[in-house]
Amino acid sequence: MKFEVTILGSSSATPIFNRNPTSQTLNINERLYLIDCAEGTQQQMLKFDVKASRIDHIFISHLHGDHYLGLVGLLSSMHLNGRKKSLKIYCPPQLKEIVDLQLKCSETALQYDVEYKFTNPDVAEVILENQDITVETIPLDHGIACTGFLFREKKRLRKLLKEKIEAANIPVEYYSALKKGADYVAPDGTVYKNDTLTFDSDVPKCYVYCSDTQYNEKYFKQISNADLLYHEATFLNNMLDRANETHHTTALQAGEIALKTNAKNLLIGHFSARYKTLNELLDEARSVFPATELAIEGRVFGVE
Amino acid sequence: MKFEVTILGSSSATPIFNRNPTSQTLNINERLYLIDCAEGTQQQMLKFDVKASRIDHIFISHLHGDHYLGLVGLLSSMHLNGRKKSLKIYCPPQLKEIVDLQLKCSETALQYDVEYKFTNPDVAEVILENQDITVETIPLDHGIACTGFLFREKKRLRKLLKEKIEAANIPVEYYSALKKGADYVAPDGTVYKNDTLTFDSDVPKCYVYCSDTQYNEKYFKQISNADLLYHEATFLNNMLDRANETHHTTALQAGEIALKTNAKNLLIGHFSARYKTLNELLDEARSVFPATELAIEGRVFGVE
Repeated sequence: MKFEVTILGSSSATPIFNRNPTSQTLNINERLYLIDCAEGTQQQMLKFDVKASRIDHIFISHLHGDHYLGLVGLLSSMHLNGRKKSLKIYCPPQLKEIVDLQLKCSETALQYDVEYKFTNPDVAEVILENQDITVETIPLDHGIACTGFLFREKKRLRKLLKEKIEAANIPVEYYSALKKGADYVAPDGTVYKNDTLTFDSDVPKCYVYCSDTQYNEKYFKQISNADLLYHEATFLNNMLDRANETHHTTALQAGEIALKTNAKNLLIGHFSARYKTLNELLDEARSVFPATELAIEGRVFGVE
Repeated sequence: MKFEVTILGSSSATPIFNRNPTSQTLNINERLYLIDCAEGTQQQMLKFDVKASRIDHIFISHLHGDHYLGLVGLLSSMHLNGRKKSLKIYCPPQLKEIVDLQLKCSETALQYDVEYKFTNPDVAEVILENQDITVETIPLDHGIACTGFLFREKKRLRKLLKEKIEAANIPVEYYSALKKGADYVAPDGTVYKNDTLTFDSDVPKCYVYCSDTQYNEKYFKQISNADLLYHEATFLNNMLDRANETHHTTALQAGEIALKTNAKNLLIGHFSARYKTLNELLDEARSVFPATELAIEGRVFGVE
């Protein structure tokens, strides 16, 4: 099953040339999920060929502008481009007020339904469950109400060993039961154990999105064992005081968090505009957690 | 005196690849004025090296998102980049409500003052006057409350003919009076007529911004004799019905308006996303008004 993240923006607070503020899309089994939606996100989607029409769920972590100011523009473009299917937005409650006011002022009545699910910054909750995944909020520590998001694949059905199935002449109508783990009893009474006819599907994968937050162990248990951990790394560690003051994390801390929570891979982003190049941030995170990559715009990372 | 417009965005409604929605800056005597501020305007400013710190006046024509959704991001970036000097915004009243709500939700207290001057969509008014220019609103016809803006240079002081001034041995303290048109009387009683000592400065120029609007002669008199008329031209004339329905103008109509109002030059913009190339729009406007150019992003047009 496809499970990958496309970076649309990785800058913090202010854009700089070639770095847009935060946004990314997850493609999980060919469904697209948008996480945060900074100003310019719809332009980035055009640039990187991400189809807005394929997005049915939008997750907004918090109400600092660099994480949501592109939302109203995106909603308007969806409307103008003829969207009819409903859209679900997971966000702090005040975002609905902001969207409604702006739609009212532009005299726009969207041609599709928007359903809101409000996040609670104090409690980890499952906010979405469908056939592919569950999504949980992660209470972060950013001064302002802020949640990360944890995308966890569901355990998939077992897969059929075609040659064995054919050799045993098993009728098609039994396949569904076999995928769920049942044995097969042939008309002559022969019992075929399920594990001789099927094999386990891939181990479910987990993507964790932590932006924005300062270092705080309160969320470590929840995010442990991520296959891919995206964590903000706004500053180098020589600016730790500034990081604490602004409720952000350093690249060194991001590496430590990946290590302590037993992540398989780490992706750092939300870089301060002061860093014109990102190598120092990468080196710092890798000094404690080698399997680190930079969230660079347009790059696609598999959750593996 | 420098008087030029830089196009930051020329798309209507939705962005398309390489065309951002509406925004432009005027440089008049090295002061920058921002007209409309679509989503992505601050990114366009980075791209085209327009310094936000030099902007003290922002003009918003109306509250369709493609004309103002970049404003809150720009205000936030000005704040984060240490702006202290005040900023003046000329706009429909509801925009203040939108800005205030978003600043409240992000718990941001701007470090500089924002002063609002609300536009009245029914009356042409002078909304700004300084040593260089006056700016008037232009009541347009766009369904929603919408004003264009007319930037008119002030008549400049006369310029000194240095050789004549030196030949007549005129002391420096008289220069200011000469520039204002006074004659000079020498100690021996000789009278030097002003026009022998000075010459007229350039004829004041006028830039007219008309977006968005449908064809309506009500504003023609006010905008007449523009040195450069920017007029929206959302559609080709074969979509006149759609233009009327959405309160927009066709390229042919824009050309006709330039002709009827005796403009010197016409700049068309606000192109529908359906037009991947713009030559047909340009040809159509030029068929009635040859001195037409396309408002292409990053291009700079002198008001001459």
